[in-house]
Amino acid sequence: MNDARIGILGLGLIGGLLALAVRRTWPGATLVGVDIDEGVVREALARGLVSHASSDLATLDEADLIVLAAPVRANIAALPAVARGAREGTLLSDVGSTKRDILDAARRAGAQGFVGGHPLAGAATGGLALASANLFDGCPWVMTPGNDTPPALVGRLERFVRALGAVPRTMEAEEHDWVMAAVSHLPQLVASALMHVAGGLAGDDGLALAGRGLSDTTRLASSPPAIWRDVCAANADYLAPALRRLIDVLEGLRDDLPRGDRLEDVFESAQRWKERLAG
Amino acid sequence: MNDARIGILGLGLIGGLLALAVRRTWPGATLVGVDIDEGVVREALARGLVSHASSDLATLDEADLIVLAAPVRANIAALPAVARGAREGTLLSDVGSTKRDILDAARRAGAQGFVGGHPLAGAATGGLALASANLFDGCPWVMTPGNDTPPALVGRLERFVRALGAVPRTMEAEEHDWVMAAVSHLPQLVASALMHVAGGLAGDDGLALAGRGLSDTTRLASSPPAIWRDVCAANADYLAPALRRLIDVLEGLRDDLPRGDRLEDVFESAQRWKERLAG
Repeated sequence: MNDARIGILGLGLIGGLLALAVRRTWPGATLVGVDIDEGVVREALARGLVSHASSDLATLDEADLIVLAAPVRANIAALPAVARGAREGTLLSDVGSTKRDILDAARRAGAQGFVGGHPLAGAATGGLALASANLFDGCPWVMTPGNDTPPALVGRLERFVRALGAVPRTMEAEEHDWVMAAVSHLPQLVASALMHVAGGLAGDDGLALAGRGLSDTTRLASSPPAIWRDVCAANADYLAPALRRLIDVLEGLRDDLPRGDRLEDVFESAQRWKERLAG
Repeated sequence: MNDARIGILGLGLIGGLLALAVRRTWPGATLVGVDIDEGVVREALARGLVSHASSDLATLDEADLIVLAAPVRANIAALPAVARGAREGTLLSDVGSTKRDILDAARRAGAQGFVGGHPLAGAATGGLALASANLFDGCPWVMTPGNDTPPALVGRLERFVRALGAVPRTMEAEEHDWVMAAVSHLPQLVASALMHVAGGLAGDDGLALAGRGLSDTTRLASSPPAIWRDVCAANADYLAPALRRLIDVLEGLRDDLPRGDRLEDVFESAQRWKERLAG
């Protein structure tokens, strides 16, 4: 890819990290970027993050590979225009947290060159300031081709992902979204709901007595609300039953607090999963 | 306290850390310990953690200060015998996570020398292995006197706590238990319930895609089930309404996922509390 032209839509946290990783991996590649925010465009240019950048989607037109790295809704909104502008043979991908919605959008836009992607690098706070190290090294990068995506395209994305140090894994978009509801979107909802409730109950005086337990359990509560609103809406049909299951478990624990039999069962199951998560 | 005799019931994580901190603060003090587990007693002696130790509560009889550092139920069970054995003028305290129950037990046992205590050092896993640094340095240490506790006794506990580097704070047992339900017990329940549900939904294959978000949000899920069963049972009347509030918030989020208005409100409130928690 050293003589390729690579375009990135969205130069926030994930787009910025991607640009840095691409620069390091292919110093000779031409990197172009688009962001709706003129300030972000200026900052990306000032930092030398990209060779060319603007707020105009046409900046991406001549790229060999275009990665959509804006928030999910913005990616979906931009996809038809990006696909129309792209030259024949351009590989289109994204790095969004939900995959069924963007695959639907690609299908509707007739974007045959699209393969969904999701690097699982996981950072809760945003901004280019964090974009220093190669966050993709060793991280799983899910690829979700459509039903009629040419295998050669998937192979191109796979080589791109591997070269960045990530570990590609092909999944159905449905499976991806179901797993993410459980391991990513549900924890996010829970962390924010817990911080909201604990703060309201304890107040500032009570929070002064909180230990690392509350702090770690609510780390994700610093995440940007608008982005998560879109992610949760896009995955609502899978997230709702996962949340229902959690609520049922909490209801069961609540009814059983004075006895604690159910509590001990849930805690022991949680301990076992926790060990497997770490192992 | 350098020529004092200090007794500790329970030589697990918190008792072990306390013994280490006492040793460092008053090298001349005589430190005696009791643990129900003969293996823990042997290990504490072998490590020189205490001067004398056994599984017999009478080991504590001659102490000037006795701290109950066993699990909550064990503290409550031992309290009458410890109070009977203690000499006149002995200061009795504890380091348990709930305070109404142990104060009730002290009242029933006629233990006039008792002042409740709770250092908020916060570590999720147990064992003497972690007991290396002075975990009490700068940590809040709640003191809960009874209604008729002589102020001089509270003063003695306060000096002890300060000398260990902690920051004493006097509270009503009711207020302590209410605050802990929100900032400690609720996060614990949530972390375990989330790990139980996310593991069950995602399975090992799905967990391989989990990022630091799930890992941090469920850090507390490694906590010992039996200890938390007792803590939650002891504080059930305050914990149940806190859990009810959380369930209501989660229900609200669930119904509103496709729109996301309520989600954005809760997330923004959580973000504000999170900043105040960190600040």
